[in-house]
Amino acid sequence: MSDVTTPQPAADAATSAEAALNARYGTHWNTALPAWNATLDTLLAHRSVRAYANRPLPAGTLETLVAAAQSAATSSNLQTWSVVAVENPARKARLSAFAANQSHVRETPLFLVWLADLSRLERVAARAGAPLEGVHYLETFLVSAIDTALAAQNAVVAAESLGLSTVYIGAIRNRPEEVAAELGLPPRVMPLFGLCVGYEDETKRAAVKPRLPQQVVLHREQYDAASQQQGIGGYDDVFAAFQTSQGLDDAGWVARSLGRWRSRESLHGRDRLRDALNALGFELR
Amino acid sequence: MSDVTTPQPAADAATSAEAALNARYGTHWNTALPAWNATLDTLLAHRSVRAYANRPLPAGTLETLVAAAQSAATSSNLQTWSVVAVENPARKARLSAFAANQSHVRETPLFLVWLADLSRLERVAARAGAPLEGVHYLETFLVSAIDTALAAQNAVVAAESLGLSTVYIGAIRNRPEEVAAELGLPPRVMPLFGLCVGYEDETKRAAVKPRLPQQVVLHREQYDAASQQQGIGGYDDVFAAFQTSQGLDDAGWVARSLGRWRSRESLHGRDRLRDALNALGFELR
Repeated sequence: MSDVTTPQPAADAATSAEAALNARYGTHWNTALPAWNATLDTLLAHRSVRAYANRPLPAGTLETLVAAAQSAATSSNLQTWSVVAVENPARKARLSAFAANQSHVRETPLFLVWLADLSRLERVAARAGAPLEGVHYLETFLVSAIDTALAAQNAVVAAESLGLSTVYIGAIRNRPEEVAAELGLPPRVMPLFGLCVGYEDETKRAAVKPRLPQQVVLHREQYDAASQQQGIGGYDDVFAAFQTSQGLDDAGWVARSLGRWRSRESLHGRDRLRDALNALGFELR
Repeated sequence: MSDVTTPQPAADAATSAEAALNARYGTHWNTALPAWNATLDTLLAHRSVRAYANRPLPAGTLETLVAAAQSAATSSNLQTWSVVAVENPARKARLSAFAANQSHVRETPLFLVWLADLSRLERVAARAGAPLEGVHYLETFLVSAIDTALAAQNAVVAAESLGLSTVYIGAIRNRPEEVAAELGLPPRVMPLFGLCVGYEDETKRAAVKPRLPQQVVLHREQYDAASQQQGIGGYDDVFAAFQTSQGLDDAGWVARSLGRWRSRESLHGRDRLRDALNALGFELR
């Protein structure tokens, strides 16, 4: 793998690109590539990291991540998201308890909670004495959630370009009202997901996880369901081999994925997300 | 502005970083920064581009963008998204008609439609004779929408690192059932947004749009509503001046944003998104 912390262009770009792509798919890449660069190296080398070193972040890291996040596109420039930066150990511990007790939420030096935030425009409208009926629709929540995700992903790329690691924490949606209360959120602000940011514990280094082959996710002109089955079969083997190589249980991707959404109970409380959103003030008309 | 197509580290990193941040906020940046790099330059220099040159993309561009997209994090590795690459002029014209007739949807060499895709796992479950009750919940749609957005944003960063430009097209949600029919989507696949990818028409160059100051979107430990008002007031002036500099109408951010969500009618048909999702097979329990 290339060293993602190095901002120089790869010394041997073709080799670094193919190595990164081979790791990303667990198969040999055999498609022509455009001129390669260090940003592509950073993107391809992503790993979700769940073990962090006890090491502070450089000055200005948070502000740089937020500047990257704010540089992402945002629908009609509405900027309907906010982020809470949590560094207080007691608060991280409480948030961890709300998120399936994941230890990395406690151990990360910086825990970012990304918020779909319709309340800011509401306050602006209230000061102006203006109506804001649009805020009550499902579309409006969806715009806010998408824009929050675009922003957060830019922050992830920025962090990884700086040699930091990250992992998203969707489990804060297990108990969204309690997370909202902990962070003092006003109505119509939804804690969408968390993000750990820190230096990886190099003694517990995570590997690049292989993904589905491109033929399964990329379609030309129209959606093609028929051609996906073969690719999924091959991937199931690639994924099981990857799991074994990491000392994890060797269930394939199909068995693991079906287990995740088998039943209402397998959603770990998130089957009540619609109720939770209503309680947080989102009508979702 | 730094040249985002150059993979080398910035010759004068401090200068390039500050110039990029000053443009992004329309104010003078005065916070210490970590060691800078070319990826941060690319992220900060984002501009949504709505005028494209008639110039083909280098070989392997699409596959590289998809590899970057697939490298983004995905909840439980479920990979619940797909993308349709549209290059056929007649199809681009029809999709443009569904998306408020935006001319760049026709003119872009590559139009990507990003799909929240629960149908793939459903087909896997059907072949395995396994239940997949989780697929019917709002949480599951939200997971899929978030993961689609994370993936698409990685594709945007990859494209911009290659000297290409992009713009998201949320307006395909004005008429999602017609977009779904055009692309042959099976049930439980939602066309979430489009993305134009191409070389910018240099005769109509877009500028970096200033965003809200960090004090408005970034909170420490808990959400702070009170401190946002001052930042919004200053931003309203920055934004109006930016609009004027671009030869656009000089309405401030507050007036523009309130207009966008004033009423049900101002959502341009997206007030019926919930019905559209139901029609596409999403129960959203």
